[in-house]
Amino acid sequence: MSKTPWTQLWLDYKKVNSKGNEGYVSNVSLEGFEAEHPIIKNALAELALGVKEMLGQEISVKTGPLEQGLVIKKETTSPDLEGAYRLAEKSGKLTLLAGEESGVLYGVFHVLRIIATEKSLQGADEKKSPSQPLRMMNHWDNMDGSIERGYSGRSFYFRNNEFFIDERTRDFARFMASIGINGIVINNVNVKDAATYLITERYFDKVAELSGLFAEYGIKLYLSLNFASPLELGGPKSADPLNEEVIAWWKEKMAEVFTRVPKLGGFLVKADSEGRPGPFTYGRTQADGANMLADIVKPYGALIIWRCFVYNCTQDWRDYKTDRARAQYDNFIQMDGDYHDNVILQIKNGPMDFQVREPVAPLLGGLKKTNQMMEVQIAQEYTGHQIDVCYLIPMFKEILEFKTYIRKENDTVADIIGGGLTEHRNLNTGIAAVINTGNDIYWTGNVLAAANLYGFGRLAFENSLSAKEIAEEWIRQTLSNEDEVVEKVLSILLPSREVYERYTSPLGIGWMVTPHVHYGCSVDGYEYSRWGTYHRADHLGIGVDRTDKGTGYAFQYNEPNASMYNDIDTCPEELLLFFHHVPYTRVLSTGKTLIQHIYDTHFQGVEEVEAMISCWQTLEEKVPAEYFANVTERFGRQLTNAKDWRDQVNSYFYRKSGIPDEKGRIIY
Amino acid sequence: MSKTPWTQLWLDYKKVNSKGNEGYVSNVSLEGFEAEHPIIKNALAELALGVKEMLGQEISVKTGPLEQGLVIKKETTSPDLEGAYRLAEKSGKLTLLAGEESGVLYGVFHVLRIIATEKSLQGADEKKSPSQPLRMMNHWDNMDGSIERGYSGRSFYFRNNEFFIDERTRDFARFMASIGINGIVINNVNVKDAATYLITERYFDKVAELSGLFAEYGIKLYLSLNFASPLELGGPKSADPLNEEVIAWWKEKMAEVFTRVPKLGGFLVKADSEGRPGPFTYGRTQADGANMLADIVKPYGALIIWRCFVYNCTQDWRDYKTDRARAQYDNFIQMDGDYHDNVILQIKNGPMDFQVREPVAPLLGGLKKTNQMMEVQIAQEYTGHQIDVCYLIPMFKEILEFKTYIRKENDTVADIIGGGLTEHRNLNTGIAAVINTGNDIYWTGNVLAAANLYGFGRLAFENSLSAKEIAEEWIRQTLSNEDEVVEKVLSILLPSREVYERYTSPLGIGWMVTPHVHYGCSVDGYEYSRWGTYHRADHLGIGVDRTDKGTGYAFQYNEPNASMYNDIDTCPEELLLFFHHVPYTRVLSTGKTLIQHIYDTHFQGVEEVEAMISCWQTLEEKVPAEYFANVTERFGRQLTNAKDWRDQVNSYFYRKSGIPDEKGRIIY
Repeated sequence: MSKTPWTQLWLDYKKVNSKGNEGYVSNVSLEGFEAEHPIIKNALAELALGVKEMLGQEISVKTGPLEQGLVIKKETTSPDLEGAYRLAEKSGKLTLLAGEESGVLYGVFHVLRIIATEKSLQGADEKKSPSQPLRMMNHWDNMDGSIERGYSGRSFYFRNNEFFIDERTRDFARFMASIGINGIVINNVNVKDAATYLITERYFDKVAELSGLFAEYGIKLYLSLNFASPLELGGPKSADPLNEEVIAWWKEKMAEVFTRVPKLGGFLVKADSEGRPGPFTYGRTQADGANMLADIVKPYGALIIWRCFVYNCTQDWRDYKTDRARAQYDNFIQMDGDYHDNVILQIKNGPMDFQVREPVAPLLGGLKKTNQMMEVQIAQEYTGHQIDVCYLIPMFKEILEFKTYIRKENDTVADIIGGGLTEHRNLNTGIAAVINTGNDIYWTGNVLAAANLYGFGRLAFENSLSAKEIAEEWIRQTLSNEDEVVEKVLSILLPSREVYERYTSPLGIGWMVTPHVHYGCSVDGYEYSRWGTYHRADHLGIGVDRTDKGTGYAFQYNEPNASMYNDIDTCPEELLLFFHHVPYTRVLSTGKTLIQHIYDTHFQGVEEVEAMISCWQTLEEKVPAEYFANVTERFGRQLTNAKDWRDQVNSYFYRKSGIPDEKGRIIY
Repeated sequence: MSKTPWTQLWLDYKKVNSKGNEGYVSNVSLEGFEAEHPIIKNALAELALGVKEMLGQEISVKTGPLEQGLVIKKETTSPDLEGAYRLAEKSGKLTLLAGEESGVLYGVFHVLRIIATEKSLQGADEKKSPSQPLRMMNHWDNMDGSIERGYSGRSFYFRNNEFFIDERTRDFARFMASIGINGIVINNVNVKDAATYLITERYFDKVAELSGLFAEYGIKLYLSLNFASPLELGGPKSADPLNEEVIAWWKEKMAEVFTRVPKLGGFLVKADSEGRPGPFTYGRTQADGANMLADIVKPYGALIIWRCFVYNCTQDWRDYKTDRARAQYDNFIQMDGDYHDNVILQIKNGPMDFQVREPVAPLLGGLKKTNQMMEVQIAQEYTGHQIDVCYLIPMFKEILEFKTYIRKENDTVADIIGGGLTEHRNLNTGIAAVINTGNDIYWTGNVLAAANLYGFGRLAFENSLSAKEIAEEWIRQTLSNEDEVVEKVLSILLPSREVYERYTSPLGIGWMVTPHVHYGCSVDGYEYSRWGTYHRADHLGIGVDRTDKGTGYAFQYNEPNASMYNDIDTCPEELLLFFHHVPYTRVLSTGKTLIQHIYDTHFQGVEEVEAMISCWQTLEEKVPAEYFANVTERFGRQLTNAKDWRDQVNSYFYRKSGIPDEKGRIIY
C-alpha cells in the first residue's frame, strides 16, 4: 500500500477508472505563471505524480496555446481571495484560472481529486474561493518529541529538542496543501523549555528551512510564543507589556526573528491560562498584551493570534455562581474594538473545552469589532483519543451554521470567521484546528480519524460541502472507490459522533471523563475538582443551571438565542443539561423520562458500536489489509470503552436516583 | 538545632536536668565484652556523645571492678533472645547485663533515653527482651532516587542508580539501633531496572559496605529480589522455580552474592502481585517459589521473606462476588505447613491495603504452621502523606492485641508474630514497617511523623508499651521536656488517627481517595476501577456485604470472630461498612442514623483539626523554631485537606441519599 514508510493518506493515488479524464491531463500549458516558481513547480510535480499513478500516463508541460488538455492561466481581471480558482471544461480543453500560485496548487489538487474519486472532468464549471481566509492547523508538539493530547505517536517535527525536516515533512506539507491549509503552528501553545528558544539563534536555521518548505506549498509557518520570553531569555526581569524595557527587548528580538525567518507568518499566544504567564500578571489587559506584540510584528506583515481560553482554573466546586462557561466572554467582550488590526482572537468553538456536545461560544456573535478565528480540535482529546471513531465534521457544520443574531442576516459563525462582519471582507479571520497527527505510520492513530484531518481542511475551504460529501471524497481517495465500501464506511462515519455522545455524557453536560487522561468514564472525576466542570447530579436530578436563576450564562447570547436557552421548554434537548438542572423524572420530547433517556441512549450507543463493527468486518477483502487491521483493533478497544461508559453511567445514575430501567436490563 | 545538615531526630541530646543521673555514667567498666568490638565501640561512643551533650560530662571507660558508675557485663547464665538486656541499679552502681553486643547497644540507648526524658536511673530494675524477634524496616526506595509512596524527599541511599553511603547513612543506622530495629530492606519491593542488578558485580562492593555499616549497629541488611532475575540477568529464559536450569542459576548466583556480601540477611520478595513476576506465571505455587530460594540461601543462614499481597488487580467492578479482601487468605492458607523453615510470610496488617481502618488480616490467626511476619506502613500512603498528622501507634496496638482465637490463649497477633505459636519460641517471626523516611532535613516530611518512625521500633521491641508512653518518650527527646509541651503534643498525637478517620472515609469502608495519588478525597475515585476497592453506595445505603450472604469474607476468621463480624448487630461499629451494606437510615449505637453519623463525624473531624492547630500555635516559643514552622505549614495543608474531605463526602452522600443534615449545616 505505502510507497513510503508512512502512508500517503488521501494522496495514495491508487489506479482508477479514468472515466475519460486522461485526455484532459496529458498536455499542460502555463499562461502567465512561471514554471520555475516553487509553488507551480510543486503543483506540476504533484499533477505528474497523480496522473502517472492513477492513470498510468505521463504529462507534458508547455507554454503557449493548447487545443486539448489543461491550460493553467493567470486571472488578472477579477481579484479574489488568495487561493481562489476556477475550473472550466469546454470542447476537451480544461482551464484552470487563478490569481496566484496558491490557487493553481489548490486547483491542481482539485483536478487530482476529481480523477481519484472517479468523477468526470468533462463539463467542469466550478468557481472555488476559500470560505475562511485563514485555515490553520495548530500542533501541540513539544520539542522533546512528546505531543500534548497526541494520540498518534510522537512528533514528526521534533525529537530530543532537535528539528527533523525530511521527506515526511514534505509529504505532510503536500497533504495540508491538498486540503487548502495555509497556516501551521508547529509547536505547543504551552511554550516551555526548549520551545522558548525557537525565537533564538539556536533554532533560526531550522525554523527558516521549515518555513521555506511550507512556503513552497502555500503555507505560512507560525510559532507559539512564550509571553514570558523576556524573562526567560535573559532580557528584562519582567514581561509587562507596557514596560518600556520589555517593549524594547521585543522590538530587537522581532527584528532578529524576521531577519532570520522572513517567511514567518506570526505567533500564537496562550496567555494567562492554566498557569501560563500573561498580561494579567502585571495588571494589564489582554489587549495590552496582544497589541504590544502586534505593533512590533506589524512591519513584517505578521499576525498575533491570541487565544481566548482564559478562565479560573482554581475554581471551588462548592461555588455555584462562578461559571467557567462564562469566562471567555466575560474576559474578552469588554475590550471589543480595542484590538489592533493584526491581532486575531482565537476562540474555542464552545465555552468549555472541546466536549462532544457544547453550545457555540457566545463570544462568537458577541464581538462586533474584533478579528476572530475559531478553534476546533480534531485531536480527539474528549472524543475518543482516535481509538473510538468520531467523525467530527457534522459537529463543525452545526457550529458554522449556528445563527448568532449578531445582525439581521449573514450572522452565522461561518459568516463571522469568514470575514463577513466588516464592509470589506476581513481577511484576518479564519478557523484553526488542534491537529490529530503524529509520527505513526497512519499519521492519525486510527486510520478513520484521518477523515477529520481531511475534512477539517476541506470544510474550511468550502463551507458549503456537506459532511457526507467530504466523507465520501475521503473514503474514495483513501480506502476504495467501490460503492459498497463508500456506503458502508459512510454509515460508520456519519453517525459516529452521535454514537459516541450516546454512550458517554448525556445531553450536553460533558466531562464525566477520567481526570487528566480524558479517555474513559469517571462520572465524578471532575465533579469535586478545581476545573469548573461540574454536573451537579443529586438524587433528584442533574445539570447546571445557567439560566437567569443560575449563573446567567444564557444571557451572553443575543436574542432570541438567550431566551431560547434560558427556557427549559425551548432549550434544544441535546443541550438540556448544559443549561438546566433537570429532574430525572422530567418527560422529554420522546415521551421518555430523563433517566430512561440516559439508560436507553447508553444501551443504544453500545449496540450501535457493535453494529459498526459488524459492518466494518464485511469490508475485510475490500479495503487495504493494513487499514483493515488498524481499524479492527481500535474498534475492539472502542467496544470495551463504550461498555464501560454504559455500565458506569447507568450504574451511577441508577444508584443515585433509585429509579429502575423500565426495560429491566442489567445495571450494576 | 541541628548539628548536621539533617536533624538528629530523637537523638538530639539536648541539655537536660540531670536528675542525679550524672554519677551513673561517668565511669564505665566492661566485663566480658571487648571494647574493640564494633558494636560495643559504637555503644560506648554513643554513650559518650549523649552524656557529653545532655549532661556536659565526659565518660571514662575501664575494665575491672567499679564502685560507682556503669558496669556493662556479659550475661552467660540465662540465654535470652538476641538483643535482650537487664538494667539494675544498686548503691550507685548501674549494671547493664546482656548476652550479646546488641543487648549492650540497646541497653545503652535505654540509659540515654532515661537521661534524655529526665527520669532517674536510681532504683532501675528492668529486664527487656524484644517482643518480636525480627523488627524490620522496608524502604521502597528506587535506585534512581525516587521513593514509591515517599513523602519525605528522595532516597538517601540511592541517586542516579548509585549508592550514597556517608555520615547520614551512619546517623540513620544509629536511629534505627536506638529503637531496636535489627533488619532493613533497602530497596523497593517492586524491583526493576538497576535494582535488579543489586545482586551483581555492579553493586557488590557497595552492598557489602552498607551491610558492614549496619552490622556495627546490630542491623542486618536485606534486599528486595526480582523473581525474574534469571531472565533479566542473562540466565535461563525462565524463572520457573522447578526448572533445573533456573535452580542451578540461582545456586551459582547466591554463592556469588554471599561470598561478596557475607553479612546479608536475606531477601524480601513480592511475587505475582500487581504486575510483578512470580511462580504463578509458571503454574507453580507460592510455596514452590519461596522454598526454592529458601533452600538455596539456607547454607548462608539467610531468610526469604515472601509477601502475601497477592490478589487480582484487574477485577471487574461489576462483579459483586470476587472480593479482594479474601485474596491474601485464599491464596496462602491452603499451603500452611508447606513453607520451609527459613521462609517467612509477610502479611499486611489488614486484608486490603493500609487503610486508616481495616479489620485484622484473617491470615494472621489462620496460618498455624507457617512463619509469619506482619507488615504495617508508617509511610502515610493512605493516612495523610505526612502532611496530615496521623499517629499510628494506637492502631498498631489494636492490631497486636487482636484476639485471633487460633487457640485458647496467647492467641493475639502479637503472640503469633512474636514466635509464640510453636513449642519453642519461633525466631523467624516478626514485624516490618514500610518506612516513612527520605532525604529531607526532618527525615519524615512532617516533624510529627517521626513519632511513627520512633514508635514503630519501640513498640516492636516492647509490645507492652502504651501508645501514650511511646509518644511521651518521643516528645521529650525530640521537642521538649517541658510538661506543657508534652501534654499538648500528646493531645494532638493520641487522637490524630481517629481525627483523620473522621474526616475521611467512614466506618471502615476505606478508599474514597484520589486514584494513584492516594491523598485527597475522591469518593468514586476507585468505585468503577479494576482494583477491587468499592463502597457500593447507592441512594439507599453503602457498604460491602462480606457476610455469608455476600462474599463470605467474614468466615475467614475463627469463631467467635466470624459470627461477630457476620452479624450486623454484633459487628464492631467502626467496621460496619467493611462487612455490611447498610441503609443510611439505620440507627447506630449513638442513637444517630448512619447518614447523620457521616455528616457529624465529618464536621467534627475538621473542628478537631482546627483545635489541634490552635493548640500547636500556643507552643511557638516552646519547641525548636524550625520544627514549629514545619508543623505549622503542614497543619495549614491538613486543614484544607480535611475541609475538602468533609465537603466532598457530605455532599456526595447528601446528593445521593437526599437526606438533609439534622443540624442544617452547609452541605454543597
